[in-house]
Amino acid sequence: MRIAIDAMGGDHAPEAIVKGAVQAVSSINKLEITLIGDESKITPFLQGQNNISVIHTTEMITSEDEPVRAVRRKKQASMVLMAKEVKEGRADGCISAGNTGALMSVGLFGVGRLEGVERPALSPTLPTEDGRGFLMLDVGANVDAKPQHLLQYGIIGSIYSEKVRDVKNPRVGLLNVGTEDGKGSELTKKAFSLLSDAPINFVGNVEARDLLQGVADVVVTDGFTGNVALKTLEGTALTMFSMIKQTFLSSFKTKLAAGLVKNDLRGLKDKLDYSEYGGAGLFGLAAPVIKAHGSSNDRAVYNAIRQACHMIEKDVTPTIKTALQEFERTGGEV
Amino acid sequence: MRIAIDAMGGDHAPEAIVKGAVQAVSSINKLEITLIGDESKITPFLQGQNNISVIHTTEMITSEDEPVRAVRRKKQASMVLMAKEVKEGRADGCISAGNTGALMSVGLFGVGRLEGVERPALSPTLPTEDGRGFLMLDVGANVDAKPQHLLQYGIIGSIYSEKVRDVKNPRVGLLNVGTEDGKGSELTKKAFSLLSDAPINFVGNVEARDLLQGVADVVVTDGFTGNVALKTLEGTALTMFSMIKQTFLSSFKTKLAAGLVKNDLRGLKDKLDYSEYGGAGLFGLAAPVIKAHGSSNDRAVYNAIRQACHMIEKDVTPTIKTALQEFERTGGEV
Repeated sequence: MRIAIDAMGGDHAPEAIVKGAVQAVSSINKLEITLIGDESKITPFLQGQNNISVIHTTEMITSEDEPVRAVRRKKQASMVLMAKEVKEGRADGCISAGNTGALMSVGLFGVGRLEGVERPALSPTLPTEDGRGFLMLDVGANVDAKPQHLLQYGIIGSIYSEKVRDVKNPRVGLLNVGTEDGKGSELTKKAFSLLSDAPINFVGNVEARDLLQGVADVVVTDGFTGNVALKTLEGTALTMFSMIKQTFLSSFKTKLAAGLVKNDLRGLKDKLDYSEYGGAGLFGLAAPVIKAHGSSNDRAVYNAIRQACHMIEKDVTPTIKTALQEFERTGGEV
Repeated sequence: MRIAIDAMGGDHAPEAIVKGAVQAVSSINKLEITLIGDESKITPFLQGQNNISVIHTTEMITSEDEPVRAVRRKKQASMVLMAKEVKEGRADGCISAGNTGALMSVGLFGVGRLEGVERPALSPTLPTEDGRGFLMLDVGANVDAKPQHLLQYGIIGSIYSEKVRDVKNPRVGLLNVGTEDGKGSELTKKAFSLLSDAPINFVGNVEARDLLQGVADVVVTDGFTGNVALKTLEGTALTMFSMIKQTFLSSFKTKLAAGLVKNDLRGLKDKLDYSEYGGAGLFGLAAPVIKAHGSSNDRAVYNAIRQACHMIEKDVTPTIKTALQEFERTGGEV
């Protein structure tokens, strides 16, 4: 397996990226990694591994860059060259912790869409209270989704969950404003009907209130709603942790209590940290493309690499292609 | 001020409803309340107040009822008769803690739309970390919103916040997938342009991540997205409280800590309890209609009554009507 990685993307690049790559090649068999970025900043963290190579470039896309314009203009940017490795067959998949919009753009125009897929989806695995997690797609690649896009997300998410996350017969739910059939917007009503006829375990509408309770293994939604749900979840969790911290610092008594539960509460925070599940897949492209969280440390980068390897080993991309073709052939309206 | 209240709606009806009404008439001047529901279940909680009257009916709409059908068929339901009091001029506003969909239906067809308003919005005030709170509209009355609906929500929300919540020059934000101008779906791009030209303090796009930080006083969104954001917020907070509880029960040491911070953490929970801000207004109707939370206790019912009184005293409904007419007259495309 050959993976190309944008060494310059993310808050802790290149150190966390390179260290994650070093961990990965030492523990995953037959893995070859190509790091793309500023060689002088990358090599200090390498330890002479044979199966890591570096492509040198000093140009990079920052988180402040306007995505589409940056991808068009910065032709030597590490992220752009990363996609080129995949496009030209020198890598089987790629990973970046950089600018999400730019990665969607290089994914779409650099790596290219998978035949038969109308719109790729950005798909993180999010935490649940029981620790199993669920896949949500889309969270922002396609903000004006059509019913047939949501249908494809259901099929793609189901295949990924079964192959990579080892979920048997994954429960696919449609994010909606109520659980009853027939609820929702024009978009979700039509998507409900299409998903009902798809070759997946469609469990119907699910509500945002029940997401963290693990109400489904795959939650399908349009990119606008998914983005808002994801950010509401993150914002609420962060605000609550901040309020809990303030509560614990408010008096001598509460500080005493804080000392007693500090480690346990840190465990709670880890449970809600979704970098443990790897990065967000950009599904529906011709090869695995993974968006690692911007704040990824070396552990999160390692998890994203492992995730890309799983996708390659388990033939996720060819399986999605075949499933969509098969569904279309048998009269499904994909 | 005359307020009609559905005495049979909500988890703690009629007890919490009647007790909230009793508290309200004893502390708010010139208030007359009409309770609608089963007299034999209501009177035990009354204390012979002169300014509370009862309209007896045994029919009621439950939370399981399909809203539109229930409103059409149960012509003597407490909620339906409540709206009739407003429609026929015997009450200036009304309140129910019952079935939200049914209340939207009796609001729209019983009370009626305010002239010039295209679609009413369900508008709760949600908590922020600093305790000021923000108004979000719409959270589910109108799941297929058009740009001009969002424009009207901005104007309506601004007037309500200024008049009832005493916010000077309220900051109106548009919920979106990024803060930059030009971001988002077709809907939000068009709404952004309309809101920019409206006679309000429009602060641009806001992200779901920043809602609890008080990034705006009024957050405008379509009913589908708003519903998902609200329920994600509730679900995340509830799951986190449940996980914190489990953490505290996990060992002797953590139980000891729990004893020390119990009261402080309860304060944190209260801070996130948005029934303190009253109920959700159904804005854009010909009179104030308030949806109290289903789990409302007497305190929450009292707050909802106070909120309805404020709306009546401060002429919120006539002000909205004038503002929309004025905007249209001067060339705004409402």
